[in-house]
Amino acid sequence: MCELLGMECNVLTDIVFSFAGLSGRGGKHGPHADGWGLALYEGRVARVFLEPAAAAESPLARFVREHPIKTLLAIAHVRRKTRGDVSLANTHPFTRELWGRHFVFAHNGTVKNVRKLKLGRFRPMGKTDSEYAFCALLAALEHDFGQTAPTRTALAASIAKHAGRIGKAGTFNLLLGDGDQLYARCSTNLHYIVRKAPFKKATLADEDVSVDFAEVTTPNDRVAVVATMPLTRDESWTAGVPNTMWVFRGGALVKTLAS
Amino acid sequence: MCELLGMECNVLTDIVFSFAGLSGRGGKHGPHADGWGLALYEGRVARVFLEPAAAAESPLARFVREHPIKTLLAIAHVRRKTRGDVSLANTHPFTRELWGRHFVFAHNGTVKNVRKLKLGRFRPMGKTDSEYAFCALLAALEHDFGQTAPTRTALAASIAKHAGRIGKAGTFNLLLGDGDQLYARCSTNLHYIVRKAPFKKATLADEDVSVDFAEVTTPNDRVAVVATMPLTRDESWTAGVPNTMWVFRGGALVKTLAS
Repeated sequence: MCELLGMECNVLTDIVFSFAGLSGRGGKHGPHADGWGLALYEGRVARVFLEPAAAAESPLARFVREHPIKTLLAIAHVRRKTRGDVSLANTHPFTRELWGRHFVFAHNGTVKNVRKLKLGRFRPMGKTDSEYAFCALLAALEHDFGQTAPTRTALAASIAKHAGRIGKAGTFNLLLGDGDQLYARCSTNLHYIVRKAPFKKATLADEDVSVDFAEVTTPNDRVAVVATMPLTRDESWTAGVPNTMWVFRGGALVKTLAS
Repeated sequence: MCELLGMECNVLTDIVFSFAGLSGRGGKHGPHADGWGLALYEGRVARVFLEPAAAAESPLARFVREHPIKTLLAIAHVRRKTRGDVSLANTHPFTRELWGRHFVFAHNGTVKNVRKLKLGRFRPMGKTDSEYAFCALLAALEHDFGQTAPTRTALAASIAKHAGRIGKAGTFNLLLGDGDQLYARCSTNLHYIVRKAPFKKATLADEDVSVDFAEVTTPNDRVAVVATMPLTRDESWTAGVPNTMWVFRGGALVKTLAS
């Protein structure tokens, strides 16, 4: 199993506070020591840091925390392997280009009999059920829309439909980004919070680290954060309902779909 | 224009020495201050560091030099923009998955009328002629071989043919990796060296930095390095003949094709 973290904002924001909380679960406070990854969008393109090792002890993860890169959309993952060795090819998040933009995907859970899913032109490079399911999901999107990017509404509906179908065979909590929206499907465990004015102080659940967001924000800022388990101890997170998918845009929850 | 660097070896090797030489040309000794990138393969998958800023002053480039990652195949690039803004989307090397492996591409030169080239399913995310040409090249490979990966011989012949065709409209020095071989096409400027026993000392062309490779190698090691201009002042580099393509595997030049 693994832990997921997503952030989607209406103003360029660094993910350092939340990523520090997630990193701690990658080998220090949690057992997810088999790899970590962080994707940060700049427009349609994601820059991805990946390492098949524990985030808590990684010099690269420390570098990313100490040299924050601001973004409107980020997806991070710490891995505890269930299928597939510890290797770069098996490290989330996974990335593919479709319709001239990066799709970035991270998964918590295990999808059974994944090789029964139909693949299109996207082929797994590693051995995880997660990457296979991602390739099958992209194949289904391309099958639905061909070479022309769909509208936001049509895309969200299609993602919800196919993620629900794939998720029937196991546990399929996922985060998916396309540089425009963040899609977060709950199979068993997923939580979100939207931070907006009036901003308050927040303290990490696993560490004595606090941020007073009032000091680092402006009144119009909105930041949505999604995580497997709440990352802070003094904020009110909303739990996901199994078989639903949240869609975030502009730092707000804009849609909840059955999935 | 830009500078290219590729490394292909028969033993896991770090690229720090050569990358230090290239980085210096990214804003310190050279004008290539509009971005840098470094792709390091682990098997079929590449880990890619990208930054739309000068390598010579980049904390991330320094981190990569100070925390060497060993690899059998690497491609690096420092950019001086001719087409396209300074942005992540326009920063080389570019990466796509085809046949379950990463193809990584970096380009020196300008291809004219690039939008006349036929695209398949690979779409540019940025505005460079380079990424467009890369997408057109992959489309041509997929057109030749469909969804089944070809043999090494057939793939090299196809890359040489299509790179030569695309390169007719401008300057198309390129490095292309697939995790198995390094393809290096010379349009105007490209040089290579193979370091093997007996190893000697080498000194960077632009800096007073030396390495005695005899101290860090074993007698069977072979490391091929390709660069736009020779990176060292005391080694003998071989200049490329325009419209030819080198193929490197196992740290050796295994083939030279017309292109």
